[in-house]
Amino acid sequence: MTPVMTRAEMQDYLWEVFPQVRGHFSVEHIDGAVTVMRMPVTDQNLRPGGTVSGPTMFALADVAAYAATLAHIGREALAVTTNCSIDFMRKPSADADLIATAEVLKLGKSLSVVDIRICSEGQKAPVARATLTYSIPPKRD
Amino acid sequence: MTPVMTRAEMQDYLWEVFPQVRGHFSVEHIDGAVTVMRMPVTDQNLRPGGTVSGPTMFALADVAAYAATLAHIGREALAVTTNCSIDFMRKPSADADLIATAEVLKLGKSLSVVDIRICSEGQKAPVARATLTYSIPPKRD
Amino acid sequence: MTPVMTRAEMQDYLWEVFPQVRGHFSVEHIDGAVTVMRMPVTDQNLRPGGTVSGPTMFALADVAAYAATLAHIGREALAVTTNCSIDFMRKPSADADLIATAEVLKLGKSLSVVDIRICSEGQKAPVARATLTYSIPPKRD
Amino acid sequence: MTPVMTRAEMQDYLWEVFPQVRGHFSVEHIDGAVTVMRMPVTDQNLRPGGTVSGPTMFALADVAAYAATLAHIGREALAVTTNCSIDFMRKPSADADLIATAEVLKLGKSLSVVDIRICSEGQKAPVARATLTYSIPPKRD
Repeated sequence: MTPVMTRAEMQDYLWEVFPQVRGHFSVEHIDGAVTVMRMPVTDQNLRPGGTVSGPTMFALADVAAYAATLAHIGREALAVTTNCSIDFMRKPSADADLIATAEVLKLGKSLSVVDIRICSEGQKAPVARATLTYSIPPKRD
Repeated sequence: MTPVMTRAEMQDYLWEVFPQVRGHFSVEHIDGAVTVMRMPVTDQNLRPGGTVSGPTMFALADVAAYAATLAHIGREALAVTTNCSIDFMRKPSADADLIATAEVLKLGKSLSVVDIRICSEGQKAPVARATLTYSIPPKRD
Repeated sequence: MTPVMTRAEMQDYLWEVFPQVRGHFSVEHIDGAVTVMRMPVTDQNLRPGGTVSGPTMFALADVAAYAATLAHIGREALAVTTNCSIDFMRKPSADADLIATAEVLKLGKSLSVVDIRICSEGQKAPVARATLTYSIPPKRD
Repeated sequence: MTPVMTRAEMQDYLWEVFPQVRGHFSVEHIDGAVTVMRMPVTDQNLRPGGTVSGPTMFALADVAAYAATLAHIGREALAVTTNCSIDFMRKPSADADLIATAEVLKLGKSLSVVDIRICSEGQKAPVARATLTYSIPPKRD
């Protein structure tokens, strides 16, 4: 599948529709196979034990699945998550960025299913995996 | 199961170990059956469409499962989420608090499984449901 | 929600559309709140350790969610499962029936979300919990 | 990770510990990266609409995750599934075998997390994806 938005277009669009996340996430790469997002880890994301919090990794998975879906359908701000399963498997590094790689497994008219793996930058073993379903609103004429 | 922490003790403890969430969540109620958490909805939590974001509801489910687990095992800051499945079913109200009710389905030595339902205050139909597994660290002597 | 099919109608319908499961499951009860299914445990369902296999419990959860959905929308054989999360929490008894209680959390035009708890008959602590999403085909005129 | 069991050893072992599934599944391939299982589709696996039933695909995902785990830890019949999330994304072919490819994402002392994709043989787009957690019993001396 050839993406319909470039990396730079997606970056601008995410910051336009989610002004709160400006600077929290950046779009690293988009191609026909995957969308890659980067998230710097800050003190705000840490929890007891000096590890990155679960909600922080969920937020990264969620925005990565959103970007991966929009990369193929274009600007559709109102796509919403309907389901997510997520496994937290290893303690992320407190001093490396998190990198999420999202692959669209299904893209139908009304929903997308996206697989995500999250790694601490420079590590191969994933710290988390997630699958999200996004509901895509019907096209207006 | 009789809880080992009161509502006020849990409130103090959450704010001590998660200083970032001070004021974002409050402990509404704890008894032998359920733990109830309240989250005010603010502009910071909204996403396109004027609805509460998925990560906001995940964060509420996560802290509710944490509190429900600690209500029965006591102060164990290092309990960590290992798995979550969550379904977003209805659009939450943008001007009502979210109320999460958490029920511990299993409490073993090394893990807990907790079911959560989230409603907009005053509404009966749940906006989201989640199940979380928490890993409980071994007791030190 | 008042169900549109009785227990006996549902029993007949399941055996008509799923002739392979005739005798494996029975419909115990249907009312506005829940649908209850019963499954006898046989040697065929056991796995190493003398416990009921995961696929057996998944099958029970799946048919219970199907029946709970059809109880409210009527005979719609082509409803299909699109997503399931399931937690296996305790070892079921090898010599008691399994009882699944299904509650419809959302019933939309195109999908239902159903929560299920499975217990060994006579035990209160659930052996498994599951949430299933069913996709409902559009109505033909 | 180098596997500790060969394809033929795994085949024999599965049929020994799960005599009920003899002939329902076969082990296609094992290497350091993935374990591949094959399941012939028969009338017994079909459901209304002429499609393979959800429980059939769950059973395939479950046995593939079991084999993928045992490929790395050896004969450990009592490993049990504790959690599964599964998405059914496309209608499988009624006249092609199902092929499940399982990848171990985490292998700890007490649990494994395994990702599975299921395709109809000869098709590239997956019909289902699943993630399973297996609990591994402590080693006896």
